[in-house]
Amino acid sequence: MAQCAYHDQLINIRRELHQFPEEGWTEFCTTAYIVKYLRELGYEVLLGEKVVSRKDCLGRDPKLVAQAIETAKERGVCECLLNEMQELTGCCAVLDTGRPGPTVALRFDIDCNNVQESGADTHRATAEGWASKRPGLMHACGHDSHISSGLAVARWVMDHKDELNGKLKIVFQPAEEGVRGAAAVAASGIVDDCDFFLSSHIAMMAKTGEIITSPVGFLCTTKYDITFKGRPAHAGIEPNAGRNALAAACHCVTQLLGIPRHGSGMTRVNVGRIVAGEGRNVIPVNAKLVMEVRGETGDINKFMATETENIVQGVAKSFGVEYNIEKMGEAVDLFNDKELVDMLDDVCSKTEGVTKVLHEVNFGGSEDATILARRVQEKGGKAAYFVLGSDRAGGHHTAEFDIDESSLDIGMKIYAEMLKRLMK
Amino acid sequence: MAQCAYHDQLINIRRELHQFPEEGWTEFCTTAYIVKYLRELGYEVLLGEKVVSRKDCLGRDPKLVAQAIETAKERGVCECLLNEMQELTGCCAVLDTGRPGPTVALRFDIDCNNVQESGADTHRATAEGWASKRPGLMHACGHDSHISSGLAVARWVMDHKDELNGKLKIVFQPAEEGVRGAAAVAASGIVDDCDFFLSSHIAMMAKTGEIITSPVGFLCTTKYDITFKGRPAHAGIEPNAGRNALAAACHCVTQLLGIPRHGSGMTRVNVGRIVAGEGRNVIPVNAKLVMEVRGETGDINKFMATETENIVQGVAKSFGVEYNIEKMGEAVDLFNDKELVDMLDDVCSKTEGVTKVLHEVNFGGSEDATILARRVQEKGGKAAYFVLGSDRAGGHHTAEFDIDESSLDIGMKIYAEMLKRLMK
Amino acid sequence: MAQCAYHDQLINIRRELHQFPEEGWTEFCTTAYIVKYLRELGYEVLLGEKVVSRKDCLGRDPKLVAQAIETAKERGVCECLLNEMQELTGCCAVLDTGRPGPTVALRFDIDCNNVQESGADTHRATAEGWASKRPGLMHACGHDSHISSGLAVARWVMDHKDELNGKLKIVFQPAEEGVRGAAAVAASGIVDDCDFFLSSHIAMMAKTGEIITSPVGFLCTTKYDITFKGRPAHAGIEPNAGRNALAAACHCVTQLLGIPRHGSGMTRVNVGRIVAGEGRNVIPVNAKLVMEVRGETGDINKFMATETENIVQGVAKSFGVEYNIEKMGEAVDLFNDKELVDMLDDVCSKTEGVTKVLHEVNFGGSEDATILARRVQEKGGKAAYFVLGSDRAGGHHTAEFDIDESSLDIGMKIYAEMLKRLMK
Amino acid sequence: MAQCAYHDQLINIRRELHQFPEEGWTEFCTTAYIVKYLRELGYEVLLGEKVVSRKDCLGRDPKLVAQAIETAKERGVCECLLNEMQELTGCCAVLDTGRPGPTVALRFDIDCNNVQESGADTHRATAEGWASKRPGLMHACGHDSHISSGLAVARWVMDHKDELNGKLKIVFQPAEEGVRGAAAVAASGIVDDCDFFLSSHIAMMAKTGEIITSPVGFLCTTKYDITFKGRPAHAGIEPNAGRNALAAACHCVTQLLGIPRHGSGMTRVNVGRIVAGEGRNVIPVNAKLVMEVRGETGDINKFMATETENIVQGVAKSFGVEYNIEKMGEAVDLFNDKELVDMLDDVCSKTEGVTKVLHEVNFGGSEDATILARRVQEKGGKAAYFVLGSDRAGGHHTAEFDIDESSLDIGMKIYAEMLKRLMK
Repeated sequence: MAQCAYHDQLINIRRELHQFPEEGWTEFCTTAYIVKYLRELGYEVLLGEKVVSRKDCLGRDPKLVAQAIETAKERGVCECLLNEMQELTGCCAVLDTGRPGPTVALRFDIDCNNVQESGADTHRATAEGWASKRPGLMHACGHDSHISSGLAVARWVMDHKDELNGKLKIVFQPAEEGVRGAAAVAASGIVDDCDFFLSSHIAMMAKTGEIITSPVGFLCTTKYDITFKGRPAHAGIEPNAGRNALAAACHCVTQLLGIPRHGSGMTRVNVGRIVAGEGRNVIPVNAKLVMEVRGETGDINKFMATETENIVQGVAKSFGVEYNIEKMGEAVDLFNDKELVDMLDDVCSKTEGVTKVLHEVNFGGSEDATILARRVQEKGGKAAYFVLGSDRAGGHHTAEFDIDESSLDIGMKIYAEMLKRLMK
Repeated sequence: MAQCAYHDQLINIRRELHQFPEEGWTEFCTTAYIVKYLRELGYEVLLGEKVVSRKDCLGRDPKLVAQAIETAKERGVCECLLNEMQELTGCCAVLDTGRPGPTVALRFDIDCNNVQESGADTHRATAEGWASKRPGLMHACGHDSHISSGLAVARWVMDHKDELNGKLKIVFQPAEEGVRGAAAVAASGIVDDCDFFLSSHIAMMAKTGEIITSPVGFLCTTKYDITFKGRPAHAGIEPNAGRNALAAACHCVTQLLGIPRHGSGMTRVNVGRIVAGEGRNVIPVNAKLVMEVRGETGDINKFMATETENIVQGVAKSFGVEYNIEKMGEAVDLFNDKELVDMLDDVCSKTEGVTKVLHEVNFGGSEDATILARRVQEKGGKAAYFVLGSDRAGGHHTAEFDIDESSLDIGMKIYAEMLKRLMK
Repeated sequence: MAQCAYHDQLINIRRELHQFPEEGWTEFCTTAYIVKYLRELGYEVLLGEKVVSRKDCLGRDPKLVAQAIETAKERGVCECLLNEMQELTGCCAVLDTGRPGPTVALRFDIDCNNVQESGADTHRATAEGWASKRPGLMHACGHDSHISSGLAVARWVMDHKDELNGKLKIVFQPAEEGVRGAAAVAASGIVDDCDFFLSSHIAMMAKTGEIITSPVGFLCTTKYDITFKGRPAHAGIEPNAGRNALAAACHCVTQLLGIPRHGSGMTRVNVGRIVAGEGRNVIPVNAKLVMEVRGETGDINKFMATETENIVQGVAKSFGVEYNIEKMGEAVDLFNDKELVDMLDDVCSKTEGVTKVLHEVNFGGSEDATILARRVQEKGGKAAYFVLGSDRAGGHHTAEFDIDESSLDIGMKIYAEMLKRLMK
Repeated sequence: MAQCAYHDQLINIRRELHQFPEEGWTEFCTTAYIVKYLRELGYEVLLGEKVVSRKDCLGRDPKLVAQAIETAKERGVCECLLNEMQELTGCCAVLDTGRPGPTVALRFDIDCNNVQESGADTHRATAEGWASKRPGLMHACGHDSHISSGLAVARWVMDHKDELNGKLKIVFQPAEEGVRGAAAVAASGIVDDCDFFLSSHIAMMAKTGEIITSPVGFLCTTKYDITFKGRPAHAGIEPNAGRNALAAACHCVTQLLGIPRHGSGMTRVNVGRIVAGEGRNVIPVNAKLVMEVRGETGDINKFMATETENIVQGVAKSFGVEYNIEKMGEAVDLFNDKELVDMLDDVCSKTEGVTKVLHEVNFGGSEDATILARRVQEKGGKAAYFVLGSDRAGGHHTAEFDIDESSLDIGMKIYAEMLKRLMK
């Protein structure tokens, strides 16, 4: 298969970013890298609240953000750029061709995982010396390749801008892991004027050469952190004087796990973590639950979320404790518009390297690009999300994750051809 | 031991009433018997709402009441008397000596138990032919002897009324079982003007000849019936559409049983019965819990009751069901006034047949005479409750329960002597 | 549409049986009616343990059976026939043509529902005087029409026996409601030698003229009655001495409702009824749960059933109570064999009155014909189950249920034509 | 009040030890200090397994022990002494007078609390510069004064050894906090030959000058750490494949809190802390509960402990998870022998500074000296535990805790006089 003209760039940038992974909402160095690259190409690049609505950020830890800003300064990111970011990561490149035409948005996500990269010689990044240099953090979901793809597409656009009409927005979205970032990006309004929206993910269940142009089964999900606050008392002397947050939390869990099944489709509920109590002989004061619900459709997920809220309120009443429910992440379902699926099908069928075009394959997970896609669709635009197949060395989110980099050429060609047709 | 002059009456009336036991709030025949006897003696007898506050009746089942009225009619109780009762059982004999002096109240309870009397030849009532003629109902707590004692005292009073001063009220209280009746009698105000209040129970933990003049450890208790009402749905087709009253009830139970221990004293909680649901494949709509809490003091019992209410409300919120909490019974703790205990001690020490006077013996149960006693005390009067020892054939509330009838003579003498001193 | 030759019989027998509905395992009069009819036609009719394996009966209440036998005697069913039944309902007509050929089994279910039939004039059976004469019992799922169809087919076969080859078995199965009867019929081995198995249900989601030749989504299900047995104690005096069966039952429920969702498909769990405890102030001794699990596949249902058993055992251990799990019903999933579906499709396409042939329509419930179908398939035979559309006056299992009797002619023609082809 | 001859030593050693508090099982520096002091006085000092049965250590964290040994080395404790300790803290001074007489054991506990000492100027230790130098650790229960008292008594004994007969053992017990250490000391057999056992606590509910010679209401208690181990699974993709340790833990809590009240006396149960689960979307694998039960008597506590174990086992069965129950601490009730109480009463009545001798005051907590006292009593010896009153600046286990050091003189005199009489 012939490599595309941007082959080396696709790989080099991916490997460079791979070495300094940053988790959701802390991608200051990564954002700085992207911004610099895009501005050198001549893009207008929007930052901070122009791209991310601060009040709609989910699961953003101010302490981690502050640390990350310090780290960025130490690594030489200039203060002026950090000021421009307004403590918010991600950016949006904008190109207006000046010619009438549609507005097209592409979206690439940029954060990493809380995974310790494999130190085994059999792991390519380790063997070749470009593994993560940050303990406990790793691009184990391929977002490094998403960024390098986005930047390569950005360069291709500049190389072909005279052939294109209309307007292009390339969104580099923070905090996809935990489906935390898209809601704030959508709320900023940055994609509200878009006629078309396109995004993709590398690998998943598809091998190199396979493209899934209409994945289905995106699970709607809502992530919550729930806290209960009680009142301490000596467990021996006057247990009655306490308000037991741990008891509330445990009864909350037994109720949450029993949220009814739904007749219209699949549901999920998981309390993934609980920490409660202070000491063996003290009626517990503090309790925290880290949990999530999922539903096959938005309505079903809403049912799960409403039940969750009722249970938390009820338990707080039962035990006389205070409660707090904080939404930590959110994704919705997704329905690719037929016009774009048909175009993708046609493009893929003519793209060198594509061996199989698949439809209706189950995505089997959550992805917050769905929130941006739905925003575009709600405003009258059309959206599609595809899976760019790639052979994997290990599963997503594992220490051995790696992709077949040759698949990046295929993705590049698809994006380029799609832009040609959309912005013709 | 010399029998008192009222010996035969004490036994005959007891045995007659034993054959037609009536459960709480349905004692229409029993009340009619008492009223007739008292009026023949010349007492003014108050009935209906003069003695029982309708809105304060606890655990009163209108269906059972209606049936009992029918039964009473069939058994020849005249309609005029039933009309006078206003569907409320119990009565109060009043005697005003016309001479200045204190107002004294005596209280005797009149209802039976839901117990099937033993058919064994070894059971005296059966062997001698005066066992209960009503299946599933039995005077298994000795209230038949309480009534006969009350009537014998009433006769003694008439026989000695010229020696007495002040005013006497003899209250025949309905529905002591389940501690349901006293609250409504107290609320009628019938004992509000009393300077002294005296009541007693036969047997308990004391043998014939023993009198406990200051029993302690009366457990405060509140009895509740709790219902939840949900919404049905087919459990296979759309379980999400239901509101599960059975699930609410079960979580309510798991929470109730976990109400914290109290640092200041003993507590109890029991859900004695639960009935919920309609069919195997229907999300349950109806659930009922029959429960009680207890506490060593009024404050502790109040703590238990408040926790119960919070839990019921919380669970209803959690499961989106309606709830109802109905108080079905209530008793408080009791502290005999020293003046009356001293008088009882002295009287008992001089009463033939009394072999031992005991103090501070644990009552180990609940008794709603406590509510009347407290009412008198709150209004400035003095109250005492004593246990009239009696050898038992079987435990209280069992099919083999019987008393040593000779103990009734002792009780008679104590009441008579106490009245002599109080109304001197 | 031309009525079939058996039209009057189809309707008259249905309406006659409709008036004397019998619930599962008590269909003695119904069975006697069927046997008499079949034997008059000349069939060999098998009864009792030849058709129903006693030890595999699910959800069979010996008290109801004994009452039903008494009722049958009163209604004149002869003792000899009752003896032949061996207290087991249902039967199997057998016809051996004497000519080589396949063995074909047809299956019709015969029990009624615990539903009070509508007394409204708008309800046809009531208006026309052929409504149920048994309070609380009604053929509200159309099994009356199944019987009349089975008997009409039996007559058609006798009318055409010279054109048929091989052997025919017409199974009249008891206790389909609650999916209780088929397991015992299957275990008797009565269908083990069958090359083809055919059964059907009236109405469901299909209208008159519609035939669903390959319904899908039969839910596997297992029904359990669970009991816990504890030890009584006075809830006030020594609650520690009891073993609380009610508490065990409630914790069992909270755990059962939380059985995890399954990644491979739909699940259900419902505790439809709970009765526990004896009295307000007694630690409860007895508890009973009426429940069911369902799963989209046999494996998933097995997962639910295993989890249920683990929970019951665990809770019994936690609370020191005895437990019993009794299987009360069972159904599996079903996959029609293509050969029979194709044949049904072709037959239906040529049957007068059939307006639409549907495939892959969701059955959305459980049906224990599936157990017989699977038994045949496991032994190497082929099976199919179809839905005979019929306009309904009210939903299945409701007081207003009725069918469009004209659909019975269509069913008759399909069965006849299928037998012609299978036994050619 | 005249200070005793050991006044300065009592205070200086207390303040010195106060600055380097060590928590239970890590008192290596403290033990070294004590050993050095005792050996210089001429005592035989037993260490390691001679005093502490390794396998009976409760709540001993090997990691903390290893760190503490390193710290001890850094602080100059010689390796030879550490070797002698065999990783076990605490010691026992032995003096054999060589003259016939009883064997007497005194017991002083030596560990500190996990409390951050107050930095306020109003806190004397802080103001005067002898506050704890170890963040998060503080002698907030007065064990520093217990040690200085024990060492002063040891010196007094050497100063008066010619007046004493028999044998003396002075036990310095590790890990009293959490009632963890005494069981292992008892199991070593070190007090098995003792005729008399004496121990005490500073302050509690008694003021300077008050001595409680027969405290009551020592709560029996058992402390457990409970862990559940499950199996991970992706909460979205196949929740059924996991074994949910968090769910098990929460149901365990709801059951534990509902352990029945006990008719014979007070009970307590508290789950003071729970940590479970790994991540939001993973079925939780690990769960840990930190809990305790208490009972008014040994039998009641045993009831609570047995119920706990049954519940843990039952829940593990229900959820298919592994479990571990580790006993982390234990204390029993205590009944002072009359002979010693009488002697204490007499001694106190003659001791300068003692203003009030109290009996039957409620201790209202747990103390593991009870285990050593019971061991001595079981072997035929006599035991007593008294409270040495002392005005407090703040409550026990609080950051402001301090004692009135003048009370140490009183304690010194009582111990000395008791030894004079016991070893006369």
